[in-house]
Amino acid sequence: MGSAAAAPFLSQLCDYRARTLEVLRRSVPDGAPYLYGIIRETIELAGKGLRPAVCLAACGAYGGRIEDALDSAAAIEMLHNAFLVHDDVEDLSETRHGLPTVHVRHGIPLAVNTGDAMQALSMRMLRGNVRTLGPAMAFRIFDEFDHLLLRSLEGQAMELGWIRDNNLSLKIDDYVRMVSLKTCWYSFIHPCRIGALIASRGKADLGVFNEFGFYLGSAFQIHDDILNLAGTDVYGKEAAGDLYEGKRTLMLMHLLESAQIFDRIRILEIFSKPRQSRLPKEVAWLQELMQKQGSIDYARAAARDFLAAAQRAFDRAYGKCPDNEHKDFLRGLMEYVVARDR
Amino acid sequence: MGSAAAAPFLSQLCDYRARTLEVLRRSVPDGAPYLYGIIRETIELAGKGLRPAVCLAACGAYGGRIEDALDSAAAIEMLHNAFLVHDDVEDLSETRHGLPTVHVRHGIPLAVNTGDAMQALSMRMLRGNVRTLGPAMAFRIFDEFDHLLLRSLEGQAMELGWIRDNNLSLKIDDYVRMVSLKTCWYSFIHPCRIGALIASRGKADLGVFNEFGFYLGSAFQIHDDILNLAGTDVYGKEAAGDLYEGKRTLMLMHLLESAQIFDRIRILEIFSKPRQSRLPKEVAWLQELMQKQGSIDYARAAARDFLAAAQRAFDRAYGKCPDNEHKDFLRGLMEYVVARDR
Repeated sequence: MGSAAAAPFLSQLCDYRARTLEVLRRSVPDGAPYLYGIIRETIELAGKGLRPAVCLAACGAYGGRIEDALDSAAAIEMLHNAFLVHDDVEDLSETRHGLPTVHVRHGIPLAVNTGDAMQALSMRMLRGNVRTLGPAMAFRIFDEFDHLLLRSLEGQAMELGWIRDNNLSLKIDDYVRMVSLKTCWYSFIHPCRIGALIASRGKADLGVFNEFGFYLGSAFQIHDDILNLAGTDVYGKEAAGDLYEGKRTLMLMHLLESAQIFDRIRILEIFSKPRQSRLPKEVAWLQELMQKQGSIDYARAAARDFLAAAQRAFDRAYGKCPDNEHKDFLRGLMEYVVARDR
Repeated sequence: MGSAAAAPFLSQLCDYRARTLEVLRRSVPDGAPYLYGIIRETIELAGKGLRPAVCLAACGAYGGRIEDALDSAAAIEMLHNAFLVHDDVEDLSETRHGLPTVHVRHGIPLAVNTGDAMQALSMRMLRGNVRTLGPAMAFRIFDEFDHLLLRSLEGQAMELGWIRDNNLSLKIDDYVRMVSLKTCWYSFIHPCRIGALIASRGKADLGVFNEFGFYLGSAFQIHDDILNLAGTDVYGKEAAGDLYEGKRTLMLMHLLESAQIFDRIRILEIFSKPRQSRLPKEVAWLQELMQKQGSIDYARAAARDFLAAAQRAFDRAYGKCPDNEHKDFLRGLMEYVVARDR
């Protein structure tokens, strides 16, 4: 994505982010030592706000008022941050957005408890919809949220289980299924569905977003995994942290399918050790081998293919919407997803 | 409590438990490896079902149909078990109900994720109320649940923060405030409020349960702490696990206030070490000192005082209800709370 094309996209993203942050800030209660202060900190240090932006943009593209979707968009962002706090505990990640993770700053017990409270707060935030949109719409949004929440946790369970059991017999299909659960529903499909649901007061066909969000989410996650592996320090996470964690990525699936027998044995050995025992030189060897075997190129191509499919699905999902800044944002989002460097 | 008086109470408890378990079982979806199987296991191995019993009994005492409160009661039990799974991670407890804890069986990452999904399922279970009780009542129950959830997490944050910072300058009042947040709301106050809310279709004065539940919950938690310290193996948790964990109990508050200077210094030393470094002989010394200083007798007396206050508050909360098996259960509950040996 050239910087000329990116500029309006990024400025729109900043705008969505600022509006979401305002709602988030006033959604965190005061008081309660060791809890709400940590949540405030987490929110202030949070990322780009991609998920609430998708929700607000979908609402705007479908002709709705952005204000009507703000509670839901902010609830999605709160839940996303709850996931990140627990993810970092689960993966023992030490940095996030370039800073020590919540459990590094406050200890694992408080990090677990903080994530629980953030999930609870995200549900509280949705209750604002009763007042603004009426109980019937509020309940439909609850339904969307419920599905979003449990699908994501199912996908997370799958990924964690594979790592724990050192499952290396997985196929590319398994990876795609896991990503659709772990990432696509909560990051793209439901943000689109909720935005359009609110804008159309329940009249829009929400099924069109499932395909779009699945393709875009898959492209997003694969690109995310590539960024992690490339491990530039702008990314704000440990370089190649996924390899230390033993994450099942598309590159790893490809490597396992394409590596020669002796290399394969060494890969199995490295992943059978606990995280702490994986050496930098082993991780470097894995990175080199992935380069050599073309695993990273393979993943890049897959991300591009998913993006192309997302672009076709975009026309089915948003084709009838008149052009406006929100539709432009969603169009820009597709390029951004596989062009971003962090 | 004599066994003659206890028999109808326990049989009623079993009856409530069986009805709750039925709802819980059908509330856990199938599929999703590494997730719903763990939740099923957790539910089958769960405890006495005191909290849903309180909710069902309150509904029955206020003249409601037990069926109407079943979804809410089961949701409370699901959330309680979510708390326990995360509590055990936070405290690094190794046994619960006499068996290895979820994180010991499945690892910390999956335990954290499982607790998240159980919290999400508890919210899903509440949505059954829309169908059976209508949207207005369902939303009122959501409000109760929201308060219950965040108060409990605030109390838990306080306890975890005190342990992390090795705060030994706490007073008895701090302990009571922490317990009211951590235990009383979700275990007694809200189960009563929700039961009476449903039975009266929103007409009952719910404020009367705050006092009753606060006194009963405090008696319950103090007795719980005494049981942990006594550490009989019927209890199903590590003997004196609270001392290894550094939990701030009423006995510890009393000990710190009454111990002589040299003993006090040794106490501070023991608690300033990480959990893993606390020796059995140090824990045994703490237990003996608590005996000698009368800390356990003090806690027993406090539990009895709270119970007496709960009994007076019971008359205000349930005095106008006609006698039936549900009101009898709640009366029996008060004795049970400080007489149970596990």
